[in-house]
Formats: sequence, C-alpha cells, structure tokens
Amino acid sequence: MARLVMKFGGTSVANIERIRNVARHVKREVDAGHHVAVVVSAMSGKTNELVGWCKEASPLYDNREYDTVVASGEQVTSGLLALALQEIGVPARSWQGWQIPIRTSDAHGSARITGIDGSNLMDGFAKGEVAVISGFQGVHEETGRIATLGRGGSDTSAVAVAAGIDAERCDIYTDVDGVYTTDPRIVPKAQRLEKVAFEEMLEMASLGAKVLQVRSVELAMVHKVRTYVRSSFDDPADPRPGTLICDEDEIVEQQIITGIAYSKDEAQITLRRVADKPGVAAAIFMPLADANINVDMIIQVVSDDSTTTDITFTVPTADFERAKVLLEEARDKIGFGALQGATDVVKVSAIGIGMRSHAGVAAKAFKALSEKGINIRAITTSEIKFSVLIDAVYTELAVRTLHSLYGLDKA
Amino acid sequence: MARLVMKFGGTSVANIERIRNVARHVKREVDAGHHVAVVVSAMSGKTNELVGWCKEASPLYDNREYDTVVASGEQVTSGLLALALQEIGVPARSWQGWQIPIRTSDAHGSARITGIDGSNLMDGFAKGEVAVISGFQGVHEETGRIATLGRGGSDTSAVAVAAGIDAERCDIYTDVDGVYTTDPRIVPKAQRLEKVAFEEMLEMASLGAKVLQVRSVELAMVHKVRTYVRSSFDDPADPRPGTLICDEDEIVEQQIITGIAYSKDEAQITLRRVADKPGVAAAIFMPLADANINVDMIIQVVSDDSTTTDITFTVPTADFERAKVLLEEARDKIGFGALQGATDVVKVSAIGIGMRSHAGVAAKAFKALSEKGINIRAITTSEIKFSVLIDAVYTELAVRTLHSLYGLDKA
Repeated sequence: MARLVMKFGGTSVANIERIRNVARHVKREVDAGHHVAVVVSAMSGKTNELVGWCKEASPLYDNREYDTVVASGEQVTSGLLALALQEIGVPARSWQGWQIPIRTSDAHGSARITGIDGSNLMDGFAKGEVAVISGFQGVHEETGRIATLGRGGSDTSAVAVAAGIDAERCDIYTDVDGVYTTDPRIVPKAQRLEKVAFEEMLEMASLGAKVLQVRSVELAMVHKVRTYVRSSFDDPADPRPGTLICDEDEIVEQQIITGIAYSKDEAQITLRRVADKPGVAAAIFMPLADANINVDMIIQVVSDDSTTTDITFTVPTADFERAKVLLEEARDKIGFGALQGATDVVKVSAIGIGMRSHAGVAAKAFKALSEKGINIRAITTSEIKFSVLIDAVYTELAVRTLHSLYGLDKA
Repeated sequence: MARLVMKFGGTSVANIERIRNVARHVKREVDAGHHVAVVVSAMSGKTNELVGWCKEASPLYDNREYDTVVASGEQVTSGLLALALQEIGVPARSWQGWQIPIRTSDAHGSARITGIDGSNLMDGFAKGEVAVISGFQGVHEETGRIATLGRGGSDTSAVAVAAGIDAERCDIYTDVDGVYTTDPRIVPKAQRLEKVAFEEMLEMASLGAKVLQVRSVELAMVHKVRTYVRSSFDDPADPRPGTLICDEDEIVEQQIITGIAYSKDEAQITLRRVADKPGVAAAIFMPLADANINVDMIIQVVSDDSTTTDITFTVPTADFERAKVLLEEARDKIGFGALQGATDVVKVSAIGIGMRSHAGVAAKAFKALSEKGINIRAITTSEIKFSVLIDAVYTELAVRTLHSLYGLDKA
C-alpha cells in the first residue's frame, strides 16, 4: 500500500471539534487504502501561551528548557487526534519525536533534523495503525533532550517524515486551499496554482509567501517529496486537490512568471560617503555577519564627489536597531559620513522558472513600475526571480502592476 | 553532600509567580549544601483541562493516549521551574520520566513504578545541577510509551525518587502546613502532629485524610524514606518544619490515638433475608471482586426468622450503582429477599499505634458515640485503627466526640 503523510497546522486542530474533522480527513485516506502518518501542530494559541510562560520565568531563557516546555503543545494534539481516530474506528497511536526517533542537531529552539528512523512507524503500518506524530520536534541523540525546529517547524517535520518513510506524497493541510499567484487579499484576481516547481516555491517562501516554511520546501526539493498544499476546511468527504509542489519536469505548461511575493520584513540602511577603498565592504558586513544579521540587497553608488561611495543594503526589520548600533560602533573603522535608515520599505519579487529561458523579463517590470511613478530603491536578481525594494505605500500598486504585467490575473 | 527530594503540587506551581516562590524554596536547600531533586505536578487546573479534552475526544479513551496527553502538564512545569531556578542563579535542568528513566508497569492511567535509575540524576548532581523532575509519570520500558501513575501520583514519584537516589529525606510541599490530628475545618482544636509513624499515616491516608496519596506512604514505609509534609506558602527564607512521617522508633512519646479520619466516599448495601447456607458469601462477593469493586466493611446479622441473615457491607460511592446492578443480576444465585442501599453514610476512623498495647480503646468510643445518640451501622477494626459507619449527618459530631475523647484537642 502507498504511504502518505498528512500535516495539520494549529488552526486545523484548534479544538476537539476541529480535531474530529481532521480525523475524518485521515479516515478518508485510510479508507482509500493508504498507510497514513499524520503530523500535527499544537492547538492554535497554545504555543504562544507556552512561549509567554518561558519568557515570564526567564527573559533570556535556556533554549533546552524552552524546548521541553513548548514541545508539550504538539504532544497534547497527537494524543487527542489518536483518540479521535480510534473513536471513529481507525486504529491509531501517537508518536513523540523521541519515540520514533526523529534525531536532531543540538541547536535547541531551531534544531535541524539529522535523521529519521522510519522502522517503528513501518511496524505500526504493518499492524494497520495510523501514526500520529508530534510535529516541530525531535530528540538530540547524545543528550536525549527534546529539541524543537523553530516556529512553523511542523511543515518540516511532515516533509522529513515523508522522506523517512518514502511516502508517495505529503499533504500539508492549512487554512488556505493552495498556493496563489500572489496574496489574494491584495489582488482579488490572484489564481490558485495547480502546480509549482520546488525551486519556485522555495523562492516564494523565502520572499514572503507565508504558506509554507522555507526549510520544509528545501527538504522537499532535496528529497523530491511531492507536496500538496490544501485546505483542512474542505468537506472531508470531497476535498479539493490544492496545489502540488513538485519537480519542474512535472509541469508541462511553464509560465515565465509563476507568482508575485512581497515582504514588509525588510529595513533599509544607507551609509553615505563611504571611503572608496579596498576592504571597506568587509569592514561593514563582517560585524553584521558576526552578529548573525542577514544582509540581503546591496547596492553601491559612487557619490557626487567621486572619491566616496554610498552603500545601501537591507536587513530584517527585527535586526534593524541592532545593525545600526553595530555600524555606529564600527564607524571609525569603516569611515562613513552619515548613516540613514528606513523601515517603511517593502521588497516585491517576481518568481518563475521561465525566467531562465527568457531575456528582459525584469527590465519590463522596471519600466512598468516607473510608469506608475514607483521609485526603485534597490534591485536583486537571481536565475529564477528578481526583487525590487520600494516605498511601502506602493506595495499594493506594485504587486497588482506586476501581477497584471505577467498575465497572472484570473480570466 | 546530603541528597534531598522536594515535591511541589499543583497549587504551589499554579502560575509563574508561584513557580518563582518554589525556586526560592529550592535555592534555600541548595545554599544549605544539599543536592536537590525537585518533583513537580502540573499547574493547577491543567490536568483537569487535559482530562476533559481526552473525554471529549473519546469518552472511553485509550489509556495510553490519555497518558500521552495528560503527562504534558508536568512536562511544562518542569521546564518552567528549571528556567526560574536558572534565573536566580541555581543551575538546573528538567527531567521527564523517560529521560531518567522512571520505569513503570504497563497499567496506563494507574501504572506502578517498577524501578528508577538514579545514575543520570547523580551525574547532574556532580555537575552542581538541581534535577527538576516531572511527577506522576514514567515510561514502560518494553513499549517506550509514557505511563502515568494516577491522580496524585506526584507524591509517589517524589518518594520513589528519594528511594532511588537514597535521599536523606523527602519534603512534600503542599497547601497545608502538616498532618493534623483531624480535619481542622471540622475541629478547630485539631493539632498539627510533629511526627506520625508510617503505619499510622498509611491508615489515615487510606481512611480519608487527603494530605498524601496512599501509595506514596506505602512506598515511604517500605523504603524507610523519612518524609516531611510542609507548606509551600511559608516564607522561603524561614519555613516551618511541618510533620515528619517516619519509623515508629523515632517517635518517643506515643499517643494511644494519633488522629481521627473520616470518609464520605462510602456507600452501604444491605441484602435482606439471605439464605443462611454455605457459599452464599462467595456468591455475593465474587461478582463484585471480578468487577474490581472494593468491598470494605462487612457485617452479618441473623434475621428474626433465624433461617436467613441480613448482610451489610460498604463499597466506594463511585461503584455503588454498578454494584447494585451486579447484585441484582446474581439475585437468583445468591437468593436474597431485598436489596437496600444508602449513600448518606460516613466512615469515621480512629488511628494510633498505641492501640496495639491498650485494650478497650474502641469500646470506649462506641459508648461515647451512643451517648450522643449516634447509631453505629457497621464496625471494622485492625491492629492500629477502628472504623465506624454512621449516618452522614452525624459526621462532625462523631469526629469532634472522638477527637476530645482521646485527648487530641489543643490545650
């Protein structure tokens, strides 16, 4: 029988009635002849409550204890879903990360999965049992302590389990019915995509689409796990298929641009009149790298006096204040005239594998945006995407403009 | 350094402020030079919430999944207390039952501890760490599944850990400041006992005193764990000693009666006109035993016609309805005239090791109660206690009468 992983997030298991609904989704797949492993998140709100308690007990908390506390949320859901399944006649048992085991690194709070032993789950399948697995967590083998994967880690758990048991596919059930060409709240004409290539989904997730956690997409890509994003609020007896994330070879009619993403989680820093000498870039960016601050877009413009340059780059909004302090501390070493910052900026990106084989895709966008009077503060491009940094007030206008420009509006 | 176990119940860890207070109690003992293992319950209310969810998901729930869900409550507290300890400079780490491990039987929901490996905890002590242990739970070694010890099981966990690490003593912190001669809500003149013998405490706990779980006292008695009952609401800097439960040899001035207990958790069943023939007792009590219904007091009175007898006995109130059904089903086999039941009864008991060496202790009580017009429905006695079953309306009067009779009123 084919093996299947189903993952349900916090809103899908928010109370017992919803957990019963999840059980009906699982029963449908069992009745269809699948061996099913279900990965669950904590009931919505629970993780925040637990995190709040940790912060209250110890503002700079020990991540190992944080993991012990927070992992309890998924433990509760796994037991409750196993009970709800048994109640409708589906044999099931719960599995915690340490019972399977799901092995992780020791980076508590944001651990990486280092291996999954699928044999216990397989034994359960042989007995006709559904495996209900606590998402977001595993165990560090040397210390035997619970380690969590970071927020949203249950998507990653699901894909890792799918790889670990060589599942036919991994269905990520969420509160939306698939992946859209862009955020439907901004563009009502956004379309649900039938298929998205792994690489595209990875860029979309990285660039602001919140439907899947970035690491889960990476993992799906590496292990070629065919992953569906679909709605847990569909009728369990007749659900819609959702969006398939798969190898690009499976996608017959490739669009040039597949989706438009945006992220408000960017802040801009500009250093004016930086001495134009060797080593200056290292002087700027090494202190930020040492502090684990991720620098994204970088542009350098020669100043009017042509002996100095202006350097502009972006950092995550959460790191903005810290980055400014670090740069001021290094001011003498770097040698700059002024530091300017802005948080009212947004990064808008267009993603599509078709860009590889088409020239001038980005240039067309720059023209369209300038025609709408939108000033581009910075640009980055890669093989399958380009991003522009613009004033935040133009977010909706820019997203709609690009969405229409690349023919993504619903007919 | 001497090893010490401290146990804190649900009301003592009900919120972060109280958990901080617990941390201060622990720090006091660490500062005094002890190696400390702390056993914690779930935050008060949490276990009921989790049990409620299990029942909602599956009214006749699978105890293994129930255990998985319910054990999460203690996991949360253990992590939070470890954080609160670290926050005041006391090195600490949390331990779940499966990490130590605390091995249990597979009787999920009411498992027995079969063994504790203290070596991991000892390694922690050697590093100067306080061990914060989730109470109420362990792991069944063969299946690797979490098993809980039943409600109130954290007391048992604490005593078992104390035995497992050969602790100097075990301090059970609770919301009262010790063991009293009787319930102070009924008898304001009740006195806190300085010391109680294991055997006496075992009878008191079995007969209705709720301060400690019966199994924890059994375990303390078997392993000779000196156990204090004391208040977590005392000033952490200057707490009162509480009551010591210890070997009777440690108690110099032994009273005849140490305490008066009462239990409303008894129901009376009387079978009228039972044929007075061999095997009738077996016909009555075997079906109840098979259904795990615990029969306590039994009396048999020859009826007026002297060819039949009346048989009266008590069962736990929770099993009363079930017992009546079983007896009616066996009516033909037993052969009785009528079944009468009463739940408005109470069992009042007097406990004291001194009874062993004094005659007529119980007789004195029967006389005192009859002088107050209290009718005794049934009596049981053992070497160190006697119990009378009376109408529930006389509970307070009977307890006060016996408390005065044996000189237990505060001077």
